[in-house]
Amino acid sequence: MAISLGELATRFDCELRGDAATEISRVAALQNAAPDALSFLSGAAFKAQLGSTRAAAVILRESDADDCPVACLVNDNPYACYARIADFLYPPPAIVAGVHPQAVIGDRAKVSPTAEIAANATVSDDAVIGDECFVGPGSFVGPGCTLGSRTRLLANVTLVRNVTLGQRCIMHPGAVIGSDGFGNAMTPDGWVKVPQLGGVCVGDDVEIGANTSIDLGALGDTVIGNGVRIDNLVHIAHNCQVGEHSAIAAQCGFAGSTVIGKRCMFGGQVGVTGHLTICDDVIFNGKAVVSKNVTRPGRYSSVFPCEPVLEWNQKVARFRRLDKLARRISDLEKNST
Amino acid sequence: MAISLGELATRFDCELRGDAATEISRVAALQNAAPDALSFLSGAAFKAQLGSTRAAAVILRESDADDCPVACLVNDNPYACYARIADFLYPPPAIVAGVHPQAVIGDRAKVSPTAEIAANATVSDDAVIGDECFVGPGSFVGPGCTLGSRTRLLANVTLVRNVTLGQRCIMHPGAVIGSDGFGNAMTPDGWVKVPQLGGVCVGDDVEIGANTSIDLGALGDTVIGNGVRIDNLVHIAHNCQVGEHSAIAAQCGFAGSTVIGKRCMFGGQVGVTGHLTICDDVIFNGKAVVSKNVTRPGRYSSVFPCEPVLEWNQKVARFRRLDKLARRISDLEKNST
Amino acid sequence: MAISLGELATRFDCELRGDAATEISRVAALQNAAPDALSFLSGAAFKAQLGSTRAAAVILRESDADDCPVACLVNDNPYACYARIADFLYPPPAIVAGVHPQAVIGDRAKVSPTAEIAANATVSDDAVIGDECFVGPGSFVGPGCTLGSRTRLLANVTLVRNVTLGQRCIMHPGAVIGSDGFGNAMTPDGWVKVPQLGGVCVGDDVEIGANTSIDLGALGDTVIGNGVRIDNLVHIAHNCQVGEHSAIAAQCGFAGSTVIGKRCMFGGQVGVTGHLTICDDVIFNGKAVVSKNVTRPGRYSSVFPCEPVLEWNQKVARFRRLDKLARRISDLEKNST
Repeated sequence: MAISLGELATRFDCELRGDAATEISRVAALQNAAPDALSFLSGAAFKAQLGSTRAAAVILRESDADDCPVACLVNDNPYACYARIADFLYPPPAIVAGVHPQAVIGDRAKVSPTAEIAANATVSDDAVIGDECFVGPGSFVGPGCTLGSRTRLLANVTLVRNVTLGQRCIMHPGAVIGSDGFGNAMTPDGWVKVPQLGGVCVGDDVEIGANTSIDLGALGDTVIGNGVRIDNLVHIAHNCQVGEHSAIAAQCGFAGSTVIGKRCMFGGQVGVTGHLTICDDVIFNGKAVVSKNVTRPGRYSSVFPCEPVLEWNQKVARFRRLDKLARRISDLEKNST
Repeated sequence: MAISLGELATRFDCELRGDAATEISRVAALQNAAPDALSFLSGAAFKAQLGSTRAAAVILRESDADDCPVACLVNDNPYACYARIADFLYPPPAIVAGVHPQAVIGDRAKVSPTAEIAANATVSDDAVIGDECFVGPGSFVGPGCTLGSRTRLLANVTLVRNVTLGQRCIMHPGAVIGSDGFGNAMTPDGWVKVPQLGGVCVGDDVEIGANTSIDLGALGDTVIGNGVRIDNLVHIAHNCQVGEHSAIAAQCGFAGSTVIGKRCMFGGQVGVTGHLTICDDVIFNGKAVVSKNVTRPGRYSSVFPCEPVLEWNQKVARFRRLDKLARRISDLEKNST
Repeated sequence: MAISLGELATRFDCELRGDAATEISRVAALQNAAPDALSFLSGAAFKAQLGSTRAAAVILRESDADDCPVACLVNDNPYACYARIADFLYPPPAIVAGVHPQAVIGDRAKVSPTAEIAANATVSDDAVIGDECFVGPGSFVGPGCTLGSRTRLLANVTLVRNVTLGQRCIMHPGAVIGSDGFGNAMTPDGWVKVPQLGGVCVGDDVEIGANTSIDLGALGDTVIGNGVRIDNLVHIAHNCQVGEHSAIAAQCGFAGSTVIGKRCMFGGQVGVTGHLTICDDVIFNGKAVVSKNVTRPGRYSSVFPCEPVLEWNQKVARFRRLDKLARRISDLEKNST
């Protein structure tokens, strides 16, 4: 697919500086762009590569335009503009409506005639698959699950039961939504399983990463708000609520019943205790430990960067003897008075 | 399904305070309970909700009974009592004995006629599926695997090979049991794979969470004791042993050959080094680092709660200069003598 | 299968001390070895078990030979030698060439006639399966994916798209290779998905663990070098590069575009920030936080071992008051001058 810079500028609301007739047939990074490629400059880190780019054109902010050796599409948010153009040039594969002969559909399932059910997928009785949905190879849609229109389960996705997905969601391979919450009651004879009777309610435009697990509520629902982005291998326990447009990087874990505000951002491997409330617009550095409510927006951390092990071990030893240091200071203070 | 409070009291060994004829048709949280619902009060955190509940009845301890505005079922362990009643009211789906026409069963596999093998499941030669077992959609039971009676593999579970599961186990979707341990021998030409020749032996009444992986032993078995509960995305390496009734929250990781005692509890994201021994009745806070044997029961931690990043960074900087602080104290001590 | 010590010594380049005619029919750990078993001694930790072993023979270093009560195979690298002999005695299951009737193969897929495609596997159009490959039950090979010869996807593996695997690779169950990178551009209306247009390029002799996820590049490829070993539940984000023969233990996470050198080793649960460069031959202790480039080989750490919670909490409290300690020292210094 090729498209002119002029048409791109019109469609994607950019100011064009350069020849409107120039044709773009692909996107590429600044450094590697061939002369038929469109590139973008969004952050200072890549500014140094702008001068030597061989791209046909670059999407960039007005303040960078003068330094651009080739044509440019000026936009206030070059990264988002690039994302939209790339999506236009490389749309996801079209839905091929119909049920593969080797898919299995329960008798009482409601599958839109415009949906695609791929090979080796299984759709249970009492599941509802909306218009233009994609249920990928090896995926399972359990009882009581509903997919809003244009939602895609890529390969080997599992919706266990009582899962409602909104419209235009993407579930990446290996994601498990609606697994039992970890509810166990201790007795002298061992653990008794606490039945998990709720569901998972996922809003519109949500993306859930590969091998991520989201448990259904014990009573009531686990809720993922509109526009939330969840990366790979994340764990979200029963009855959590994640506010709209929050983004959760890989391997984060959330214990049960925690409520996350809107537009929060979690670096990778963050751990969040249960029954907390995190307000809107909070950012956590990777691997942070969140064990108390957070009531003020801002960035939080609890991470020690690594060091050569000998130096590190000395520091840990010092840390372990902090009490002694404090006592020595007290002694000095006594003597000095 | 509806059942009277009187019958519940008799079946589940509670003292009833209220009208024995009142019918219960569901369970619900204190706050949301409709007048036909049974609720429970197990911890102090929810005590404030008791006074305003509209539930038909509440399961609670005797000490809370006087504060209950509705009928109550008095029991020493309200949470476990609730779990048993909820399981009675909402039993797991019944097994529909038989092999789905689109399941694949190896010629030499032994499948009980009372077991259910779902669509797109694969059972290998030399696998044994016990009575009333469920092998869910997309699941794979490899060679040398045995399922004790009434064990359930929900969807897309993988038992790789040489896995023995006891009775009444539940494997949640995406769980992988019996994958190769991470055994590699370094040579000048790179790593040589060390064949993993053991198995995994799982006791009765074990529950293993979504996308959890348990490797088989290098030689001998990885062992999961009776009644163990393992949450989602946990990693258990080759030759580990987990004692009976221990509970492991999401995203914990155990390196090889570690031996865990009975009734231990691991918060989320705990990391445990290999070749350790942890005694019975140890509790680890979430994200703890366990790098030495633990010989005394109790609660352990190694976590710093997060703080606003500027404050945190100042503390880390102080920590890095602890040596200098210590030297300044030494100097002061010299001067003061 | 039985083989004589004499033949083993010849085939695997060992010096035999003992009767060349003794037959070996299995391998076992020193402690449990029956009289027909071969064992090995590779580290000091197991030396104490040597004297009482009942094995037929032991693979060991020359320096341990005099302490061996039974026959021995002397080799400079006993663990690698053991690995090779174990692989010889217990080879992986042979490929049964052909496509299972219940596998689904796209019309334009190229599948070698010597490959085995198992039940309920799906191979897309535009996928290439090399000679003697194994595509296990429930696995999915997406469009644009290529498997080099003798590569094995065990059960329920997902290659999403644009994934190239070298020769003799092993992908363990639940692994997801080629999932979309976590690319999102913020706008006032929420996140816009950034299309992920690259691929994943995996070298020869690579092993990738159960439920591990490796994202494809945003532009360009995510690259895993020859001989790399990756354990379970690891996350590797878009555009990372992992150098040859590096080994990554379970639950590590790598943010985008990080470049790892050769022969690096990562303990479990290490977290690595994006856009870093790690030189060759670096070792990270488990749970380390890697947030800066590493330019010198060696071992790094940032871990506090856990302690009884009361003692730990006191230390954390001290840590939080380090500023006060420092101020008290400054005051003392002022007074002492």
